[in-house]
Amino acid sequence: MYQTSKIVISPRVRKSPYFDSTMKYGASAFTIYNHMYMPIVFEGPEKDYENLLNGVQLWDVGVERQVEIKGPDASKLAQYITPRDINKCKIGQALYAPLLDFEGGFINDPVMLKLADDHYWFSLSDSDALLWVQGVASGKGYDAEISEPDVSPLQIQGPNSTELMSRVFGEWIDDLAFYKFREVTHSGIPMVIARMGYSRERCYEIFLQDGSKGNQLWEILWEAGKDLNITPGTPNQIFRLEAGILSFGADMHRENNPFEVGLDWMIDLEQEDDFIGKEALRIIKENGIEKKLMGAEIAGSKMEFFNEENLDVSIEGDRVGAMMSAVYSPRFEKNICYIILDVEHAITGKVVDIHTPDGDLKAELVELPWIKERA
Amino acid sequence: MYQTSKIVISPRVRKSPYFDSTMKYGASAFTIYNHMYMPIVFEGPEKDYENLLNGVQLWDVGVERQVEIKGPDASKLAQYITPRDINKCKIGQALYAPLLDFEGGFINDPVMLKLADDHYWFSLSDSDALLWVQGVASGKGYDAEISEPDVSPLQIQGPNSTELMSRVFGEWIDDLAFYKFREVTHSGIPMVIARMGYSRERCYEIFLQDGSKGNQLWEILWEAGKDLNITPGTPNQIFRLEAGILSFGADMHRENNPFEVGLDWMIDLEQEDDFIGKEALRIIKENGIEKKLMGAEIAGSKMEFFNEENLDVSIEGDRVGAMMSAVYSPRFEKNICYIILDVEHAITGKVVDIHTPDGDLKAELVELPWIKERA
Repeated sequence: MYQTSKIVISPRVRKSPYFDSTMKYGASAFTIYNHMYMPIVFEGPEKDYENLLNGVQLWDVGVERQVEIKGPDASKLAQYITPRDINKCKIGQALYAPLLDFEGGFINDPVMLKLADDHYWFSLSDSDALLWVQGVASGKGYDAEISEPDVSPLQIQGPNSTELMSRVFGEWIDDLAFYKFREVTHSGIPMVIARMGYSRERCYEIFLQDGSKGNQLWEILWEAGKDLNITPGTPNQIFRLEAGILSFGADMHRENNPFEVGLDWMIDLEQEDDFIGKEALRIIKENGIEKKLMGAEIAGSKMEFFNEENLDVSIEGDRVGAMMSAVYSPRFEKNICYIILDVEHAITGKVVDIHTPDGDLKAELVELPWIKERA
Repeated sequence: MYQTSKIVISPRVRKSPYFDSTMKYGASAFTIYNHMYMPIVFEGPEKDYENLLNGVQLWDVGVERQVEIKGPDASKLAQYITPRDINKCKIGQALYAPLLDFEGGFINDPVMLKLADDHYWFSLSDSDALLWVQGVASGKGYDAEISEPDVSPLQIQGPNSTELMSRVFGEWIDDLAFYKFREVTHSGIPMVIARMGYSRERCYEIFLQDGSKGNQLWEILWEAGKDLNITPGTPNQIFRLEAGILSFGADMHRENNPFEVGLDWMIDLEQEDDFIGKEALRIIKENGIEKKLMGAEIAGSKMEFFNEENLDVSIEGDRVGAMMSAVYSPRFEKNICYIILDVEHAITGKVVDIHTPDGDLKAELVELPWIKERA
């Protein structure tokens, strides 16, 4: 059961460049993300999921606003704001590059695109990280411009996505490697095309660089995909959880650090350059973490509940953590979820109690993710 | 006509401490504001408006998150982030104290509360100004802690609000001056009670300091107000526009500066202390502004449209600006709105054309606000 209410479209919140298309093609529920309306349901979460697996799907993710850093000191600043060693990133390449605070807590978890040696985008999740980067930079005297450019991503997801993208943009799409991108202009529309997205299905992300042309771009893709089972969709909770992908605000928060949520691999403490949170992360690494994010499988038949907020998790009556996102996976015929709990209990196979408003549920802790291979 | 869709209650977005009460008492539409659900309609915008004028109303404004600044350098930092001269503020007093960027553009437009010489709250509109203040402070070496405390405001609005507040909290409420506040504990609930709010009606704001007690506080007030025509309400577009109050995100944006939107009075360029944007504001003051926000009255009978986004405004076919918020005022029997337009056309009495999806409307520019006196 999803608890819902009404949302009013008003000028206080921005529309995505694809807004009219999403309404035209049947968006039935919205959230607000980075001060912008974002469709989150078309036919229903499970029908949208099936549609994707049977063809190709367009996702309006215009809410992923970019922090653009340009100028002679762009590389220095980009490095200062993320624990990843961005020297490892080539022009035309993207990296998952979280932004942390001085205590190592998450400010945001963007993907970074390196457009040139002096030009970067950080493609944001839901927080005004532009304010953070501008604030931090104000004290450092870097020679770099920091702004939110007119860039609005659209994701193309599903088994037929490569065919659709090749038809529209050319055969080079077949050779585009994962987390690589290219700048192109098509039908007068400037954009950056990357192979990446918010699932482990085959997917692409188009970074539209002219907000007035969102609906034109949508229709070009729609027209070309008519015989490929094209449907409208949205970043889908089921795909996300199956793939072990985290959502900032739902599964990880400012009070979490990368070690707690399985993102150790993107911290490079050995690099020479300083970055925000380096000292704090060194100490956390030395002392060990107190909490850990795990997967869990909830016993019983298909869940009929949807959690409106994080739910308490306990073992033998003692609270040990909280359940974050949860969903029924049709592919695995399992109820799956994320739990953050005290590290001493974060053991695969352990059984915990989840306290829902409708009663307690048993869940068994498992390693993440459920889907390990990328399509 | 309001265009609406569905909103799903999910753990990615926070609930206010008053959420259950607002659902219980009939909240019928929500927005998301500072990563939190916020009710914006109960019985309907006009019925909610009438209800307030006939009694007393509770508004869940828990979304007004606080930036708390504490410590030996709290005053220095508080002064650095706002153009108002905060030396004018006494302990127990509040001031409207916008946060600007280095170009003089709006980051946020909070009300500042001075709790002690080393303790301030900035009660935010909708942007992650916490990240801005923390980022800016990181380069300055101030000895101050900056955080988001467990503080969630509730507004008590309407002609019977003084009676209700006195009944519950005591006779001292009668003597509480405008923009003054006091810290109290009532029924074990810690809070700050201020005389202020988001209208020109008689109003109070309770800054609840324990998020677990929101519904308890709501019920205490409800019980005491049963014979005072108590109703649930929300920050109301009609009251707001009548009073000339601006909404950050709707009527003013990062690209606007205080001179453009009639907030010159809160800039103190003569103060000795430096603040962010001081130099930029000095230059804007010298050179004059290019755009100006005005009120406008739209001709014809009661509007049947509601603008989903800003609308183009023109004079004799030339685009001169944009209409921001618009609403029908039952009190004045007029369609009223805000327009930001090129300063050379910002002349009282001038007639402009507003381009709506349903056709053009004529509007006459007027001085703000429509309601000048505070109740």
